[in-house]
Amino acid sequence: MKLATYKDGSRDGQLVVVSRDLSTAHYATGIAHTLQQVLDDWNFLAPQLEDLSHTLNLGKARHAFPFEPARCMAPLPRAYQWADGSAYLNHVELVRQARGATVPESFYTDPLMYQGVSDEMLGPCDEVRVPSEDFGIDFEAEVAVVTGDVPMGATPEQALDGIRLVMLANDVSLRQLIPDELAKGFGFVQSKPATAFSPVAVSLDELGPAWDGGRLHLTLQSTWNGRKVGLCEAGPEMTFHFGQLIAHLCKTRNVRAGSIVGSGTVSNKSVDKDGRPHWPKGYSCIAEKRAMETILDGQPSTGYMKFGDHIRIEMKDALGQSVFGAIDQTIAPLA
Amino acid sequence: MKLATYKDGSRDGQLVVVSRDLSTAHYATGIAHTLQQVLDDWNFLAPQLEDLSHTLNLGKARHAFPFEPARCMAPLPRAYQWADGSAYLNHVELVRQARGATVPESFYTDPLMYQGVSDEMLGPCDEVRVPSEDFGIDFEAEVAVVTGDVPMGATPEQALDGIRLVMLANDVSLRQLIPDELAKGFGFVQSKPATAFSPVAVSLDELGPAWDGGRLHLTLQSTWNGRKVGLCEAGPEMTFHFGQLIAHLCKTRNVRAGSIVGSGTVSNKSVDKDGRPHWPKGYSCIAEKRAMETILDGQPSTGYMKFGDHIRIEMKDALGQSVFGAIDQTIAPLA
Repeated sequence: MKLATYKDGSRDGQLVVVSRDLSTAHYATGIAHTLQQVLDDWNFLAPQLEDLSHTLNLGKARHAFPFEPARCMAPLPRAYQWADGSAYLNHVELVRQARGATVPESFYTDPLMYQGVSDEMLGPCDEVRVPSEDFGIDFEAEVAVVTGDVPMGATPEQALDGIRLVMLANDVSLRQLIPDELAKGFGFVQSKPATAFSPVAVSLDELGPAWDGGRLHLTLQSTWNGRKVGLCEAGPEMTFHFGQLIAHLCKTRNVRAGSIVGSGTVSNKSVDKDGRPHWPKGYSCIAEKRAMETILDGQPSTGYMKFGDHIRIEMKDALGQSVFGAIDQTIAPLA
Repeated sequence: MKLATYKDGSRDGQLVVVSRDLSTAHYATGIAHTLQQVLDDWNFLAPQLEDLSHTLNLGKARHAFPFEPARCMAPLPRAYQWADGSAYLNHVELVRQARGATVPESFYTDPLMYQGVSDEMLGPCDEVRVPSEDFGIDFEAEVAVVTGDVPMGATPEQALDGIRLVMLANDVSLRQLIPDELAKGFGFVQSKPATAFSPVAVSLDELGPAWDGGRLHLTLQSTWNGRKVGLCEAGPEMTFHFGQLIAHLCKTRNVRAGSIVGSGTVSNKSVDKDGRPHWPKGYSCIAEKRAMETILDGQPSTGYMKFGDHIRIEMKDALGQSVFGAIDQTIAPLA
């Protein structure tokens, strides 16, 4: 099933079930008002939503209406946890290589992860409001999962069983604020503002064979100002799968229902062409493009995003059908 | 007024109003079921709770019952945000001096702050469960505030207006896991497990003149295994007041109702005695005691907490009355 949250003026919005082809939707009223309620009581409420989803996909839901992504909040408009990993080591390798640094050996066994802000998540079409262009505004196209309860000390395999839903995320980053916060060692407070999520959150059964071993084997498209800059494979090069990321998170604490765990920037390795590296899949954040330029030419030539810039992040299935709907945002100054 | 959340088997518990002297309580049913509900709609609901509080303090509430801190969850059993500052620079100075490092000048103008786990908060008398004693189990006695909505870009003075309630916190730290996470720069994911909070959250008017300029001018008592180890003044040596901490947090994002912001370990400067530093106020975390020992003797002699150890954190007013009730926890292995 596919679930979304419609804006209704409240902080948590209104839960809707969306058809597989994203054409129609139906309020979940009578089953649950919010997605958090469903996650809190998954075994009881999810089957009821599955039934509604089935009826909707058959075109037999009596109060169905056309689905409009622009009316969506994030599937979880506020969450009790947003922990974002850096599961594609190629991203870390690229950025470090560009600044002449190596990747510590431990990074291949111990995931990088930061605790992000979760009291306000952005809807898929909400503007990204930033006080200044000088902050180095960047997008980061990612895959994210929503969990049920996962107890402290769970293994990666046990943690996989705790995954309830999958979404896409735009983990907006303010690159010029990152070096100072990295140096302090306390993580990202000012350099990672509110994250945006795809219109719908999708259950694992709905993903079919594309969901395999805690990885999503589909292509993540990033389109910046109308130009397709990324067509990155999210599956094979994910160094740590989502079970490993969640197990890292719950080493010393319980992870509770409604936690969101992110993959970090989806990133693919270069191929060699005439003795020079070449990145045919493109990039899922501008920092990577700048790293590629630095590796090739000694300096970056692509600037970060400006007010009015536009970013679209989407993933399509084998038949070319959008799976999650598109994150579709414009960068804007603080009003 | 004083508010607490009683355990009732649910994830969010049941809101109760507690009398000023912490002797009696009354369910807030009919006004609100949870504290988050109140914070979401403060201007409408808080006056109704104030009325009930007034009646309760007069001994005229018809369904009052004896208040039992052991039945409390954290006032917010799960929160959308827990951002913990390090507002007492003396704490940073001490720990750095012990390892022969200096404090960067920027630390005196730009607060240290990390985004902490908030999907599961511990009640005041809940056990602190840790997988291993080898992790270096430490308490950290702190003051914390709960906010309403504070918009992106708010000044420290505007941010002060967004403070709704004050609590005490035990920001449990796993010291042996901290160096590796600090080195990664991404903040604390495994080394800062679930935080515990005092039985009650207290409104600003209830604190009277002790709440002044965004600082709480009372003494924070820490008692470790029955021995009073800290009697630290929380007011005068707080380098950044809570308005400054919140303004730091909302530089690039909105802060939404129900966010919790912590002060970091309350810490007082040494005094000179016979040419050696002396800390008459004691300490609010063991890491500080070990830093003091290292400064005096070249090495620490106090070990971290063991299973079965006990920590009590409390604050009393000018008349010796407990303001927030006591955090009163035992360290225990993972069941």
